Amino acid sequence: MENITQILFSLFLIFASAKLLGEIFERFKQSAVIGEILAGVILGPQVFNLIGTSEIFPVLAQIGAIILLFTVGLQTKVEDIMTVGRTSLVVAFLGVIFPFIFGYLYVLIIDHTTVEAMFIGAAMVATSVGITARVFADLGILDTKIARVILGAAVIDDVIGLVVLAIVTGLGKGTLSLVKIGLITLEAIGFIAFLIIIGRRVVYRMIPRVASFRTRDAVFSLAILFCLFLSAVASYIDLAAIVGAFLAGMVLSGLNLEYNLSIKTESLYNFLVPFFFVILGSWVDLSIFAKPALLWAALIITVFAILGKLIGCGLGALNLGKKDAVVVGFGMVPRGEVGMIIASIGMSMKAITSDLYTVIIFMVMATTLITPPILRGLTKNVKRET
Amino acid sequence: MENITQILFSLFLIFASAKLLGEIFERFKQSAVIGEILAGVILGPQVFNLIGTSEIFPVLAQIGAIILLFTVGLQTKVEDIMTVGRTSLVVAFLGVIFPFIFGYLYVLIIDHTTVEAMFIGAAMVATSVGITARVFADLGILDTKIARVILGAAVIDDVIGLVVLAIVTGLGKGTLSLVKIGLITLEAIGFIAFLIIIGRRVVYRMIPRVASFRTRDAVFSLAILFCLFLSAVASYIDLAAIVGAFLAGMVLSGLNLEYNLSIKTESLYNFLVPFFFVILGSWVDLSIFAKPALLWAALIITVFAILGKLIGCGLGALNLGKKDAVVVGFGMVPRGEVGMIIASIGMSMKAITSDLYTVIIFMVMATTLITPPILRGLTKNVKRET
Repeated sequence: MENITQILFSLFLIFASAKLLGEIFERFKQSAVIGEILAGVILGPQVFNLIGTSEIFPVLAQIGAIILLFTVGLQTKVEDIMTVGRTSLVVAFLGVIFPFIFGYLYVLIIDHTTVEAMFIGAAMVATSVGITARVFADLGILDTKIARVILGAAVIDDVIGLVVLAIVTGLGKGTLSLVKIGLITLEAIGFIAFLIIIGRRVVYRMIPRVASFRTRDAVFSLAILFCLFLSAVASYIDLAAIVGAFLAGMVLSGLNLEYNLSIKTESLYNFLVPFFFVILGSWVDLSIFAKPALLWAALIITVFAILGKLIGCGLGALNLGKKDAVVVGFGMVPRGEVGMIIASIGMSMKAITSDLYTVIIFMVMATTLITPPILRGLTKNVKRET
Repeated sequence: MENITQILFSLFLIFASAKLLGEIFERFKQSAVIGEILAGVILGPQVFNLIGTSEIFPVLAQIGAIILLFTVGLQTKVEDIMTVGRTSLVVAFLGVIFPFIFGYLYVLIIDHTTVEAMFIGAAMVATSVGITARVFADLGILDTKIARVILGAAVIDDVIGLVVLAIVTGLGKGTLSLVKIGLITLEAIGFIAFLIIIGRRVVYRMIPRVASFRTRDAVFSLAILFCLFLSAVASYIDLAAIVGAFLAGMVLSGLNLEYNLSIKTESLYNFLVPFFFVILGSWVDLSIFAKPALLWAALIITVFAILGKLIGCGLGALNLGKKDAVVVGFGMVPRGEVGMIIASIGMSMKAITSDLYTVIIFMVMATTLITPPILRGLTKNVKRET
């Protein structure tokens, strides 16, 4: 364990550079998120190596991501997601199929095995909605149809990602069981349905009672507890913890204004969310730029990753009109942990080479970095029209 | 590293039991803090062992303590502390001398060596102001003369504790250097003086500029950064991190109302502070109750620890009137990490036996648990009079 002095200095450094670079990027009319990620690149092992190895930072990053999606959930009504449910479903499915096929075919063509092609295809599937949610929150446009379609699709996308992960893992081990895949799918869908139907009623009955508790801000504490619990359960059934946090926020959204939940979460957000993006940045591996052949492969995979979501999700959202469909497409572009996890499983099973692993990490980072400025530009136009 | 699912479940459990037991204790007109500490005892290794070994929890506890003392600092004006400065100084010094002599003499009498007696005396010296600050904050009486005297004395007490630690460590090693002790003292006093005189001016010039930044809540972020930085520096020069946090809050107290600093810190407080008290509780060692001889020694040391502060600090605060002097005395009773650190150094140097170490841990816990109900009772009367 590093001593507390070191940890406090690292906390200070991370938070200070995130805020400073965030401010600089905002002054250049860019997303603060990019500044925060860049702070992570600079502080990370690739440049100054100042973050240290304490496990506290990845955990704080996770808690930050949870608070981010919880806040986004609080501003998303269940009914609103339901009304765009069909669109979200199509967006999610097409947004999975296109990147998978693109990745699969490309890896086959550059002369790798079918299993390798499957792994790379799978690693290109799962959207990580954190970046998009943050950009939309920064621009104050979470309350739009586009945002709802993306958030709904992200939840469905995560369930599909889970199934793809199970298939690919079974494939790597040579023990692909349809029953097991069916069970995993049912478990995930059951969790979400149970939560929205039963969990919601339970919480709505508890909240007015808790409001009369003597503990200060008892309702806010209950809301945070609900968020922590659902994040833990989601993580336990192998969904992303942030999906649990988003659902917790969404279930509570009807009580948000009455109990000032998002206002009270604000300073937790302010303090914890930067850790998520800084840690994300600290994972960037710059060594790829020294290997031209690998860099080319990585760039091509990245282009396919972007085109895959843009075409797939764009087609799925065509009923919103062309311009909004493009925003939905770009909103689904960022990849995250799930892609990295699939790639690392593939590497640990020796199903993919470490070169292909590096390519996936590059793609995850590139899609993450590229999205905020594009979304900012596109949504400016969208807003002007409406 | 434990996996994130386990950590999220532990976070949920710790926060849930802290809030639940806190609420129960409040309903019985007791301090919520005791409920939170009890939650730690129950979740800790002595009973259900549900907290786990991840280093994230002690670190969250430290951050919680830092936020607690920062909040207390925000409500304490430098000028107010200065007006009671002389009283605080006398309270701190007498409150160090009496417990030290009591502990020293008792250990000598029960037939231990002089070095052992010195270590036990030293471990009985340092007040940990967290408990008292929390009780006063819960009762809304941080803005009283009593609170100011205690907070001022706690800062001075910590500097003295640092010096005592240096003396005792030198004694154990057989390398007691007066020059080194002088340097440590100067460093600590220099840090505090520099901060109050120079640091304050710098921050007051920075804040209005930062207020026009584009980053949301930029002033609040700067305040948190200032708090993290001073906590790290205090910890670096071997003062308690919470002393840095308190000073940071105090320096910013003049801007508290203008920028809503304590209101914005509230939800960080709500989320993080319980971790401090739960982790404190998880350290309780119940095995002592199985050894009657040791338990007796522990009870006697505890009585001396209480009487030492009550008499020393009470005498020091006599100019506030008898009743208030008693409150100051009890407010200074809780011991904390510094006592445990001194005892553990003594044990690691084989200067004290593990039995005496257990006695010190018992005394720290007993003084912590006993203070909130007594302070609550006493301050009720004090408030009625004024």
